[in-house]
Amino acid sequence: MDLTEKLWAIEEIKQLKARYFRTMDTKDWKGLSEIFCDDAIFDARAAFKMNADDTSGKPTPGDAWLVSGGAAILDFIRTGLGTSVSVHQGFGHEIEILSPTEACGVIAMEDRVGAAGARSGEENLHGWGHYHETYRKVDGRWRIYRSKITRLRVEIQGV
Amino acid sequence: MDLTEKLWAIEEIKQLKARYFRTMDTKDWKGLSEIFCDDAIFDARAAFKMNADDTSGKPTPGDAWLVSGGAAILDFIRTGLGTSVSVHQGFGHEIEILSPTEACGVIAMEDRVGAAGARSGEENLHGWGHYHETYRKVDGRWRIYRSKITRLRVEIQGV
Amino acid sequence: MDLTEKLWAIEEIKQLKARYFRTMDTKDWKGLSEIFCDDAIFDARAAFKMNADDTSGKPTPGDAWLVSGGAAILDFIRTGLGTSVSVHQGFGHEIEILSPTEACGVIAMEDRVGAAGARSGEENLHGWGHYHETYRKVDGRWRIYRSKITRLRVEIQGV
Repeated sequence: MDLTEKLWAIEEIKQLKARYFRTMDTKDWKGLSEIFCDDAIFDARAAFKMNADDTSGKPTPGDAWLVSGGAAILDFIRTGLGTSVSVHQGFGHEIEILSPTEACGVIAMEDRVGAAGARSGEENLHGWGHYHETYRKVDGRWRIYRSKITRLRVEIQGV
Repeated sequence: MDLTEKLWAIEEIKQLKARYFRTMDTKDWKGLSEIFCDDAIFDARAAFKMNADDTSGKPTPGDAWLVSGGAAILDFIRTGLGTSVSVHQGFGHEIEILSPTEACGVIAMEDRVGAAGARSGEENLHGWGHYHETYRKVDGRWRIYRSKITRLRVEIQGV
Repeated sequence: MDLTEKLWAIEEIKQLKARYFRTMDTKDWKGLSEIFCDDAIFDARAAFKMNADDTSGKPTPGDAWLVSGGAAILDFIRTGLGTSVSVHQGFGHEIEILSPTEACGVIAMEDRVGAAGARSGEENLHGWGHYHETYRKVDGRWRIYRSKITRLRVEIQGV
């Protein structure tokens, strides 16, 4: 691949991730269904943890938060968010194109999930961290193949 | 347009939107005057709303927040912010180049507006949502042609 | 340089800045040691200030926050953060490539620094502003040559 092709692939993957955030937060489940590979794996086990060795007394999702398959991931996100008001943000993309159909990347993130209609600012979860991901180009479109969350910090209330 | 020309146009539009945020928050009105087309339309009617069918009792700006013309938009923003301390952030650009002089895009955003000198963290408005925009290249420079705000969530105090 | 080379340089500098944020917040000091030029200068004197003429009674770091040399900057950041939980975010890149080895840019930022293990949301510092920077390409890799922080707003507690 020449530099232009790599730059275009990077831009397409940035837009893929932007659609991931936007479709999730606007509850556009049809749009979200086009983000992950059919055989994707989503590892959100750290979503409620400060770090891997965090064993304190708050909720620590177990293997149920390691989800296999694009359809299962869609269902996991849709069920998890429910009618919550969520805002997921991504920035600081470090994307590397490995081949015409393979790429990897780290993306910084911040997420907020609150009760439906929560104008008051009450949030169940407010977190910061990174997505560690790989991507595959399938039928001419980039999709997320592996996605794993790590945390810098998380605040949890009423969960 | 070839891929390189499209990538360059996308980069120029990202920088246009970055200047929009920066000039507004630093009150660089001369800089902000170069962001919108002369015949631009800015639809900020949802700025105080959770969503389009939000009819609860808080302030809901009417047609006065649908502003026509670049000069009127500049005046609207300058008057609206006044001496407030504001922070507007954009990320998650989904920009599509339609022709050498036309483009459209969705950009995720977060905005905070507080009283002047508000070190205390008191804010009048803290919101999250998206800009839905179109762009035109005029005299060799991209400018915003249409801009409409939608909200995922908003918190309003003391307004 | 042609447009493709400029776009590639812009992408490399965006990833450089993303690594700056990520390595700092994950306390990857080896990674952070590869971000600045050996003769870099980092001007963080405004980090605790609302603006340049802010002379009110809170901490205002003096010349100690104007740091010269890549090794000294690394030590400054490592010592300053210590065991704090920090989250630094960057967006709104306005990067201009001046030559094959020189570039400049403005990057919007938000930063949070709290006590170690601060799940409670207590923060010592929460700020918003911009990095004003220049970059140099040294031995085939872009690095930060000059970096200066300006603030839109900052909240400080218990410092």
